[in-house]
Amino acid sequence: MSKITIRELAKELGIAVSTVSKALRDSHEISTETKAKVLEVATRLNYIPNLYASSLRRQKSRTIAVVIPEVADSFFSIAINGIEEVAREKGYHVLIYLSHESLERETEILNEFKSGRVDGLMISVTSETCTGNHITAAMNSGLPVVFFDRICEDIQAARVITDDFESGYIATRHLLEKGSLHPVFLSISSTLSINQRREAGFIKALQEAGIPEEKKSIIPCTGSDEQIAAQILQLLEPANRPDGLIASVEKLVPPVYMACQQLGCRIPDDVRVVGFTNLPAAPILQPALTTITQPAFEMGKTAAALLFKGIEKTSFDLSKETKVIPSRLMQRASSGA
Amino acid sequence: MSKITIRELAKELGIAVSTVSKALRDSHEISTETKAKVLEVATRLNYIPNLYASSLRRQKSRTIAVVIPEVADSFFSIAINGIEEVAREKGYHVLIYLSHESLERETEILNEFKSGRVDGLMISVTSETCTGNHITAAMNSGLPVVFFDRICEDIQAARVITDDFESGYIATRHLLEKGSLHPVFLSISSTLSINQRREAGFIKALQEAGIPEEKKSIIPCTGSDEQIAAQILQLLEPANRPDGLIASVEKLVPPVYMACQQLGCRIPDDVRVVGFTNLPAAPILQPALTTITQPAFEMGKTAAALLFKGIEKTSFDLSKETKVIPSRLMQRASSGA
Repeated sequence: MSKITIRELAKELGIAVSTVSKALRDSHEISTETKAKVLEVATRLNYIPNLYASSLRRQKSRTIAVVIPEVADSFFSIAINGIEEVAREKGYHVLIYLSHESLERETEILNEFKSGRVDGLMISVTSETCTGNHITAAMNSGLPVVFFDRICEDIQAARVITDDFESGYIATRHLLEKGSLHPVFLSISSTLSINQRREAGFIKALQEAGIPEEKKSIIPCTGSDEQIAAQILQLLEPANRPDGLIASVEKLVPPVYMACQQLGCRIPDDVRVVGFTNLPAAPILQPALTTITQPAFEMGKTAAALLFKGIEKTSFDLSKETKVIPSRLMQRASSGA
Repeated sequence: MSKITIRELAKELGIAVSTVSKALRDSHEISTETKAKVLEVATRLNYIPNLYASSLRRQKSRTIAVVIPEVADSFFSIAINGIEEVAREKGYHVLIYLSHESLERETEILNEFKSGRVDGLMISVTSETCTGNHITAAMNSGLPVVFFDRICEDIQAARVITDDFESGYIATRHLLEKGSLHPVFLSISSTLSINQRREAGFIKALQEAGIPEEKKSIIPCTGSDEQIAAQILQLLEPANRPDGLIASVEKLVPPVYMACQQLGCRIPDDVRVVGFTNLPAAPILQPALTTITQPAFEMGKTAAALLFKGIEKTSFDLSKETKVIPSRLMQRASSGA
């Protein structure tokens, strides 16, 4: 028996080929009655849709996923705008997933991609993500992956990062030059790639300045927002107050300023402050905040462009790509600049 | 000829029913060879997949769309967290689309939903959106829609809003009580629902205070970020400087503070300031900002819960639902509090 075509179906039904095609795709343009009629005839004539053949190829969903720890952070919200700009030019949808700094949640999210729901993935990992088995599994299923900002060091995959080591070094040198004798580094994770590199830059600058080992303080700030605020408040008590500090992520900035207000600790006279942040409000804080400002929009755009190259060109080895876009030190009053 | 079942297919192929089922769904768990074999036998035996029948019902994508003007705004980034919390409990994906305050872009986005890509839509419209034909069209295609925050007044649809009229009134009363004699209202749109209501509250408070008509100043701030900054700088020149102002959206806050810094205009002595914003940095601005703080997380959660009710219960008339969650005045130094 020869295979029946969509043309023969249309002829049998006495309607246009395009109508049959739309009915089979469950288009909103076709009435329920027509769909039922098409179904009845298709079933009777044993019509086999093309879907069968095409589903053996990887279906293009024209959707890319962006997995980030949180959206209430200027870096990520600006990076999304960069990603979105490129995706829109390409006619792609952007699915945004929030891992809320939870490895468990990140793993759940990535498991969902195995079904071919998205054509590509851009990820900035959680502060808990030390091994990347869940990411490797997604890559092994054929999904193009680009890391941006927060990467897994042990996975060979495309990366769009900024110069975190240099930024940590420059921020620390700046505090030392402005008169800080024993600056500290506030960290939200000891495993996070960006934190490790920023910390390494901090340590290098202290070593060069001949600061003794016991003064090279990395202060872990973890837990809920309230817990972090309490830790910072304790750190800034007058007894052992540091004379300089680096807030290594944006969310550490408000609790530092709040603690100083509460304790009557003057910025920059008592403690010089530098923050890693893209906060538009940085220049209007009390006092204006010296920042390491990341190329967030540029990183989002670059990562998306790389991902689309990986999606479109099967001959292109995406996993070998690394792009480094430098950050900038913006000197303001909080560091005594 | 009787219809062949998936069991008979499996028997013919000598493999498990679940394997055939997965192969037909193009699962990643099944090899390309097995898929090809299943296809060949399914075609030969004229197997008609259930897909045919089920596609006549509206397919569930288990995805909801959130269309917002921008993500770099604390209200929206916090609201997304609320939406995400509910969606995750329900096992749904959240697609986030940015309209960038462009009606054209918003219309393009909504047109894509006609294909059944998403099961429901939550939207906060652009500042250009005065008619909602594109939204009505999406609703008419059977898509459940919930407006949140920024609504289209002329569309009968579910709404989750805050008490913008009262907030505009309370903010203005507060400025008057703190000594402002001729406060102004900075607006980004004359058509936007939330702006109209905040403005109406502003006007009412001025009327009650007996402020003459010509002093009831609504100042439009439109265009690019640079254009808005220039307009605000001009407004705050000493000659006709207002002694109080309301920044009706978050993005107007930094240019107001910057202009004051540049002009040597003291907040609150020269100009008292209230901002509509959920900025975590509000208490650490120079000076700390008095805000109307919206229930962003709560609004996101409520809107998502309502949308799922609309998606799950066909008997539920979603379009009649309106939830109003009140905002709060947070008094700080910028208004002289």
